[in-house]
Amino acid sequence: MKTIVIKLSGSLFSMDSGPSGIKKIVKTLDGLARNGVKVVAVAGGGKLARDIQKTARTFHADEALLDQFGIDVSRIHAKLLTTVSNKACPDIPTTLDEVLRYSTSHPIVFSGGLSPGQSTNATAALIAERIKAKLFINATDVDGVFTSDPRKNKNAILIKAITPKDLLKKLGNEPMNAGTYDLMDILSLKIIERSKIPTMVIKCDNRRIKSAISGKSTGTKIIF
Amino acid sequence: MKTIVIKLSGSLFSMDSGPSGIKKIVKTLDGLARNGVKVVAVAGGGKLARDIQKTARTFHADEALLDQFGIDVSRIHAKLLTTVSNKACPDIPTTLDEVLRYSTSHPIVFSGGLSPGQSTNATAALIAERIKAKLFINATDVDGVFTSDPRKNKNAILIKAITPKDLLKKLGNEPMNAGTYDLMDILSLKIIERSKIPTMVIKCDNRRIKSAISGKSTGTKIIF
Amino acid sequence: MKTIVIKLSGSLFSMDSGPSGIKKIVKTLDGLARNGVKVVAVAGGGKLARDIQKTARTFHADEALLDQFGIDVSRIHAKLLTTVSNKACPDIPTTLDEVLRYSTSHPIVFSGGLSPGQSTNATAALIAERIKAKLFINATDVDGVFTSDPRKNKNAILIKAITPKDLLKKLGNEPMNAGTYDLMDILSLKIIERSKIPTMVIKCDNRRIKSAISGKSTGTKIIF
Amino acid sequence: MKTIVIKLSGSLFSMDSGPSGIKKIVKTLDGLARNGVKVVAVAGGGKLARDIQKTARTFHADEALLDQFGIDVSRIHAKLLTTVSNKACPDIPTTLDEVLRYSTSHPIVFSGGLSPGQSTNATAALIAERIKAKLFINATDVDGVFTSDPRKNKNAILIKAITPKDLLKKLGNEPMNAGTYDLMDILSLKIIERSKIPTMVIKCDNRRIKSAISGKSTGTKIIF
Amino acid sequence: MKTIVIKLSGSLFSMDSGPSGIKKIVKTLDGLARNGVKVVAVAGGGKLARDIQKTARTFHADEALLDQFGIDVSRIHAKLLTTVSNKACPDIPTTLDEVLRYSTSHPIVFSGGLSPGQSTNATAALIAERIKAKLFINATDVDGVFTSDPRKNKNAILIKAITPKDLLKKLGNEPMNAGTYDLMDILSLKIIERSKIPTMVIKCDNRRIKSAISGKSTGTKIIF
Amino acid sequence: MKTIVIKLSGSLFSMDSGPSGIKKIVKTLDGLARNGVKVVAVAGGGKLARDIQKTARTFHADEALLDQFGIDVSRIHAKLLTTVSNKACPDIPTTLDEVLRYSTSHPIVFSGGLSPGQSTNATAALIAERIKAKLFINATDVDGVFTSDPRKNKNAILIKAITPKDLLKKLGNEPMNAGTYDLMDILSLKIIERSKIPTMVIKCDNRRIKSAISGKSTGTKIIF
Repeated sequence: MKTIVIKLSGSLFSMDSGPSGIKKIVKTLDGLARNGVKVVAVAGGGKLARDIQKTARTFHADEALLDQFGIDVSRIHAKLLTTVSNKACPDIPTTLDEVLRYSTSHPIVFSGGLSPGQSTNATAALIAERIKAKLFINATDVDGVFTSDPRKNKNAILIKAITPKDLLKKLGNEPMNAGTYDLMDILSLKIIERSKIPTMVIKCDNRRIKSAISGKSTGTKIIF
Repeated sequence: MKTIVIKLSGSLFSMDSGPSGIKKIVKTLDGLARNGVKVVAVAGGGKLARDIQKTARTFHADEALLDQFGIDVSRIHAKLLTTVSNKACPDIPTTLDEVLRYSTSHPIVFSGGLSPGQSTNATAALIAERIKAKLFINATDVDGVFTSDPRKNKNAILIKAITPKDLLKKLGNEPMNAGTYDLMDILSLKIIERSKIPTMVIKCDNRRIKSAISGKSTGTKIIF
Repeated sequence: MKTIVIKLSGSLFSMDSGPSGIKKIVKTLDGLARNGVKVVAVAGGGKLARDIQKTARTFHADEALLDQFGIDVSRIHAKLLTTVSNKACPDIPTTLDEVLRYSTSHPIVFSGGLSPGQSTNATAALIAERIKAKLFINATDVDGVFTSDPRKNKNAILIKAITPKDLLKKLGNEPMNAGTYDLMDILSLKIIERSKIPTMVIKCDNRRIKSAISGKSTGTKIIF
Repeated sequence: MKTIVIKLSGSLFSMDSGPSGIKKIVKTLDGLARNGVKVVAVAGGGKLARDIQKTARTFHADEALLDQFGIDVSRIHAKLLTTVSNKACPDIPTTLDEVLRYSTSHPIVFSGGLSPGQSTNATAALIAERIKAKLFINATDVDGVFTSDPRKNKNAILIKAITPKDLLKKLGNEPMNAGTYDLMDILSLKIIERSKIPTMVIKCDNRRIKSAISGKSTGTKIIF
Repeated sequence: MKTIVIKLSGSLFSMDSGPSGIKKIVKTLDGLARNGVKVVAVAGGGKLARDIQKTARTFHADEALLDQFGIDVSRIHAKLLTTVSNKACPDIPTTLDEVLRYSTSHPIVFSGGLSPGQSTNATAALIAERIKAKLFINATDVDGVFTSDPRKNKNAILIKAITPKDLLKKLGNEPMNAGTYDLMDILSLKIIERSKIPTMVIKCDNRRIKSAISGKSTGTKIIF
Repeated sequence: MKTIVIKLSGSLFSMDSGPSGIKKIVKTLDGLARNGVKVVAVAGGGKLARDIQKTARTFHADEALLDQFGIDVSRIHAKLLTTVSNKACPDIPTTLDEVLRYSTSHPIVFSGGLSPGQSTNATAALIAERIKAKLFINATDVDGVFTSDPRKNKNAILIKAITPKDLLKKLGNEPMNAGTYDLMDILSLKIIERSKIPTMVIKCDNRRIKSAISGKSTGTKIIF
């Protein structure tokens, strides 16, 4: 049976796009489930997580606790996803073992973050590794990996394919504070590399998710 | 040893008042703890809870699950409070037993909601009952109990003292949807009544909380 | 798939009626399960709970802890039910989330109480709400709702149909101590009302449970 | 610091002796705690456990599940004890690790059974071993170990001192069904023997418990 | 449906025999599962457990904690077994209730020890009792029960059939330290006896396990 | 109060050095605790972890599960440490929250790994961050950070001080398989950098640990 892990950008849950964006994507995942594909989708924390982390930072909370606030918010997002789906496990897992257990008895599992010190990207990569996923889709708030940050540089060009090692070099000098820009962090890449997980980095919208699932080229492909 | 349970209105955590309102109140509670008073403070869900419940309602989530979203948010609020305090238990309890356990080893415990079907008010009343609190302060977003809803009726008059039975009559016909206006709901009142818990309903600001703790008259007193 | 929640009166477990009463009802529920109906049955605490609460009261235990003793006994009753059934989940859930999880993988789940401050009636109503039950049967130790308490007043007349609001008015002034007479308490009614759960109040015997399930009129119907 | 483990016969909780018997013994244990002695007391299941086991047996429950019913009842008994004590941990442990954890932060811990296949006697012996108790008192419903069962044989003589090996021989041929007469079962004796735990078998009343604690001879002493 | 409980000797996991011994046996169990047999296999701790217990003993760890180290190691062994099987529950249970729960949703469950004071043999017997197994195979590091210890006495003769009572007599005087020679300890035998569990004691290799499953005579049969 | 986190190399637990090496170091930590220093020590998995991972790899276990085997072994090592100490929490934490909770009530907490995808080094760094440690000692099986791997290159020179960024560059291209050489992995360094945790990398022996604690220069210091 085919298994897919998809990381859903936290930006999906900000109120701008509204609930309709969430609905469409969950319907797509339900469709996959009906066709016998096993899905684990990991929700990000997004702006709400960053807002709470900002308040906690004014109280001098440590970074690991800030990570935990991000995890708490991402789990609320995951629970929201369960209310739309007809195929999902009603529980949100809190450990990697629970992800595995729930996914053996439910076609779809929605998860948030699992552990401080790990972005939801890295968590999704670990899950992909643990359940031996055939495809890991990282659905972010940008179109893929660019030659430079496209939000700062208009001339940034989308990279169609890149190795974990090359991507690592691009990211190596970035800071790692809770909630910062984390397109694909180092830990995720190390995991993708060590287990050679087939990975796509795409924008988080329903059309492109469908394309990525059906194997069409969109965004950036991680190659080995 | 004196024990106090205080319900902190979810409105405290909306970004308007800013983190300074939270800081002041936690400092007051830390001061109590230094003077040997045992404190359990229960955070409400507020606007953030209502926003998430609104989204979930568009997905046709059941009311008990909407309650759960409110609990999840109130626990994040409780965790925020721990980051300010020097005296608080770092863990947020998830059952009444845990509240009791944590409060035997820490001077302050911050809690959110505990169970669907219970407002955070009712949860706070149950905690007050379980730890045999000498005072239960319900710090709300209004000045106390009024003859009618002061946000709708300019001529509403603050009631200085009222029995649970009379207050119950005032509230009996209100609906009980998750996140709706719940100054002091029926379950809270039934608990306050059955254990005769000394209770004050006041506005959630630092000055009035201090007054209530020192026994000064402010807001509405529940009498038996 | 049809789902039914049934509250089984604690009186079922007192030794007078003997194990045969239990056996018959569980066989009926097993039959439902075989026909594809999903069942959650909530056991009450009954006389055993009240006896233990009475002893604990002489030790000045608080009311919330007395509730907990009732929950403990009701879980033993629920576990007894599992030993008769061929279709039931072997685990007794301890949270609303667990009820939901177990009921997705087992045709029958037996539960006791879940939270202090909630009668097993209210717990059953919350479960009915959470699993979107098509029918909630409250099988009590009386024939239904009467114009007055039939155990005190010989002229009490069975009410065939009543709204939650009207029933609430009848019950509003009753006390809420752990283990007291609780035909249908306020919290249950608020939940039934907010989610418009189809509800029957009947006597807890096998014949009437069968009638209620097959839609026949018996006891009191809650109407909206 | 001195540590004592005491097994309290389930017969203490039957309604004949009434709550006053319980009160006296807990007061004695509270007194010990005030003098710096660490106490773990393990409650038996008694008649209530046997009644429930009898019903479950008519439903063909397996023996391990019958053991579990006994554990459930013994935990209710342990919780009853906490309501009398001023020194006890409010939680009832469910694993040996929890017993140890709770006893490091509370002067008294009340426990019930911990594991199917173990009598509460054996559980108490394991706890004595794990917390390196200086004394294990097995307070039973008889005066100690007799040359034969004193309830069947009027000429039975109390044995003042006996080795585990000799006691083992006396018990070797008894059956081990849940809830049967289990003065000191084989598993308990094996544990007492392997760790050379100083042990007294006495009748469960306050006067004799006090004697045993102060080192006076009463009942039967296990010698090595 | 047929259910089998098999205790796998800890010696299987020592590196001498290598991973191929493990592989063969798990393949046999997977085959059983494919034929509709429900299997619970309990792994022993073996030499690794004894090594760790030896170190802990030099630190004066109590016997109950030594038991716990044995349990920890046996759970690692159980987890190793899951990595070979295609039919096994990915989780290792930690209570008897979890064994039952996992075995209702998975054809094979691998377990280690569950409770201090119980050998993995006794744990396996309890599991056999709880899931009402039709056959309990105790696969040890010897060929079965002998007239004396075959590792010390060359003339020891294999006993083809023996009652629990007679076997008990043979074992009655052996010590019960954590990790010692425990072919079939007293607690196991008491459980086998009280529930009349059909039991075979055989050597832990694939050929003999297959024979025992298919009902052929090998090793020692416990008779009633 | 001063707080120290120390990572103890898994090599400490291999049988070559024997239990005496463990004893000395725990005595040093107990001494710190007596002087009011709070200590969390994280045990590595060492050779035993690598042996089990090697076996599991022949069974094609995924990398995340291999990490879990390493965590299981490191927890056994942590539990061994508790048997030597007079000051340690008897429980081994399984989440970051538990580390924090246990360390508020015990002077010493011994931990193993906490989460797959994290080396025990990274776990120790996260703990140092969460409990706001004044010093993080990484006690490894080498003398500190060298210009190249001293086990392969005789001319490797010990680096006295290095920034996280420079150390990151040295490690950037190393693989991240479970159990491989991981002097100080990337995740650890990112955490040390984001929270500017004062860190020493030294050899795991008692003399050097004492030196590092008293602020003397030994091994490699991470500078900012």
